[in-house]
Amino acid sequence: MGPAAALSCRECGHRTPLGPVFACAECFGPLEVAYELPAGDPEALRERIAAGPDNIWRYAPLLPVPADVAEKPNLNPGFTKLIKADRLARELGVTGGLHVKDDSGNPTHSFKDRVVAIAVEAARAFGFTTLSCSSTGNLAGAVGAAAARSGFRSCVFIPHDLEAGKVVMAAVYGGDLVGIEGTYDDVNRFCSELIGDPIGEGWGFVNVNLRPYYGEGSKTLAYEICEQLGWRLPDNLVVPIASGSQLTKIDKGLKELIALGLVEEKPYKIFGAQAEGCSPVSRAFKDGHDVVRPVKPDTIAKSLAIGNPADGPYVLDIARRTGGAVEDVNDEQIVDAIKLLARTEGVFAETAGGVTVGVLKKLIETGQLDPSGETVVLNTGDGLKTLDAVAPTTGPSATIRPTLASFREAGLA
Amino acid sequence: MGPAAALSCRECGHRTPLGPVFACAECFGPLEVAYELPAGDPEALRERIAAGPDNIWRYAPLLPVPADVAEKPNLNPGFTKLIKADRLARELGVTGGLHVKDDSGNPTHSFKDRVVAIAVEAARAFGFTTLSCSSTGNLAGAVGAAAARSGFRSCVFIPHDLEAGKVVMAAVYGGDLVGIEGTYDDVNRFCSELIGDPIGEGWGFVNVNLRPYYGEGSKTLAYEICEQLGWRLPDNLVVPIASGSQLTKIDKGLKELIALGLVEEKPYKIFGAQAEGCSPVSRAFKDGHDVVRPVKPDTIAKSLAIGNPADGPYVLDIARRTGGAVEDVNDEQIVDAIKLLARTEGVFAETAGGVTVGVLKKLIETGQLDPSGETVVLNTGDGLKTLDAVAPTTGPSATIRPTLASFREAGLA
Repeated sequence: MGPAAALSCRECGHRTPLGPVFACAECFGPLEVAYELPAGDPEALRERIAAGPDNIWRYAPLLPVPADVAEKPNLNPGFTKLIKADRLARELGVTGGLHVKDDSGNPTHSFKDRVVAIAVEAARAFGFTTLSCSSTGNLAGAVGAAAARSGFRSCVFIPHDLEAGKVVMAAVYGGDLVGIEGTYDDVNRFCSELIGDPIGEGWGFVNVNLRPYYGEGSKTLAYEICEQLGWRLPDNLVVPIASGSQLTKIDKGLKELIALGLVEEKPYKIFGAQAEGCSPVSRAFKDGHDVVRPVKPDTIAKSLAIGNPADGPYVLDIARRTGGAVEDVNDEQIVDAIKLLARTEGVFAETAGGVTVGVLKKLIETGQLDPSGETVVLNTGDGLKTLDAVAPTTGPSATIRPTLASFREAGLA
Repeated sequence: MGPAAALSCRECGHRTPLGPVFACAECFGPLEVAYELPAGDPEALRERIAAGPDNIWRYAPLLPVPADVAEKPNLNPGFTKLIKADRLARELGVTGGLHVKDDSGNPTHSFKDRVVAIAVEAARAFGFTTLSCSSTGNLAGAVGAAAARSGFRSCVFIPHDLEAGKVVMAAVYGGDLVGIEGTYDDVNRFCSELIGDPIGEGWGFVNVNLRPYYGEGSKTLAYEICEQLGWRLPDNLVVPIASGSQLTKIDKGLKELIALGLVEEKPYKIFGAQAEGCSPVSRAFKDGHDVVRPVKPDTIAKSLAIGNPADGPYVLDIARRTGGAVEDVNDEQIVDAIKLLARTEGVFAETAGGVTVGVLKKLIETGQLDPSGETVVLNTGDGLKTLDAVAPTTGPSATIRPTLASFREAGLA
């Protein structure tokens, strides 16, 4: 597993050998990967990375994967576009440079391909033969696709009443897709039972028993942003919050780059973005609390609708430590932000992208984010997956007869 | 416009200065871009290309665009993945190496981004301020997105009764979208009228008055395939046929690479792929005719449903000259091929990708394509855009109660 040395508990620091475990034996805290990162000349490491493939495996020296990972069959996500968003910057009043990190360019069009790719390599290392997860959307397709290409069997669990389109996206890769009569919570409880049962032997649940490895995939967003800026830290990052894992791993990635000398150390601020209809972390931030009180989600941003975000407290720490903030926007603002990004930069974002762009706008308007700083906003998914969010307010400017007179009457000439 | 020297008629060879014209003044034949391509050391040119950006602008020295094109706002499509498809190769019996060129990775998830990107730069060069097209799908979104990012107004024309999802994808970028009461043919006739009218002054119709430039975007598929193979020609290419333009431009691109010494000359075969429900070129190929008799399309592969393909005769020439063929598959075979590609390589293709993979299978089974040759098959679009094609036959393996007993009963353990 390359530079990965052990798993270490984020709460008590207790170290455990690398394996398919996710909770600390001492305190039940979450485990994460601890590294022995390459020492030496940063310039040589930068060159080694630049000579690597155009995907996340260019950062293999910083990930829990073998050095020859790029030779194995995998979807090879990452190195998505960092789009210089000058037109959006003008509309928002950002003067220090604005970039959109657009993860809709990944193989199944969401950032989930990054985390699943690392989980696949961990499953290979542990000798698992079946890849699994519980999911309500993006993750099911990402696991199905990655398993297909990597030669794993897959068996993915979803609530039985998922929208037809999402079922097709999850089932088309030919693995087993199992509808569970119950809620998403029921699906999760069932999966936990399955992991403890002999049936589950040889099964890697990407976001449960492979979670410490899976989570590391999000670090690559930090690496790519800094490399694509010319090995430089931005001043501000706006990151969506579902479980909060992505935001904490981006912070971890930035700190690693500083420690390795790959970027020059300077202050950076991380801002978390939630939908108002599922904003427990934003609420706690505004109230000055350290504890995140669970909520029942009700928002169009379904990929962020985790009412009890496991990494919420860590997100609060990071936002406060870096001088950032956590903010939320309502469904109407999400839709407006999706359209704003589309009409200024030609990027059609999933609702989660509407949340980050909408929150960026609100942070500037409320003086919480300094628009003279260099800013990066994340789009983690594709608008094609959440067409319903914009459909009611998106249609033709006019419908006309096929004549010039009719076109003139429409007032668009 | 960089190395572009003039427009030349594909029928009579008459040359015309570069401009927004598409038909030869002498014989009404189609115009294409003629170049003065860079002479000199191929190795130096290969290095110059490799040092360029990770998109089609790395080939700016071979395209009708200025040298500083990468500095201008554009969606910057291209350099999509060439996927080594070992699992698909095993299923199909390809022993000489099989690759999928996956253009679903483009910004709006189809190859149309390539052709539109060149049309945008031509529109800039000619001082146009509005980008337009007639479309029934992929092209409308590609033009809307490119115009938004590049700072053009857009006004796109569609049949008024398009599916709701396609309307959203076309309208979300905020340009004008106009529904025309009539068929796609009525939309096209209206657009021709508009070009001739004073209203249409300053309008660039990407696939009409900008068509000679637009078409050149498809050459970049040939460049990328060869560069990604290590500057080598493949033995076999399987390319979809709509108007036939893409196939003819890929052949043009390959011939340019040979002429420039960027690849070593050797025989290559180009195979055209159609849907049985719209197979006029395949029919003419099989009948040994030079003339393509128009048909009324009836197929799920709507992005290929052009019943009277303008470049059909050129496609026949190329398939015959290179020793390739033109073949077709029916709707059931298209759906089977979409699923085959998804379950072997984790790539979810649009119906057009089902056509090419299905035709590849048929070509091998009928002995028309030698599976010991190195083969590249194109996927030109994304399965998310044609979910309806696979939805009726794609669903959960089982629906169960959230208990281990219920899971065991389902027989998937």
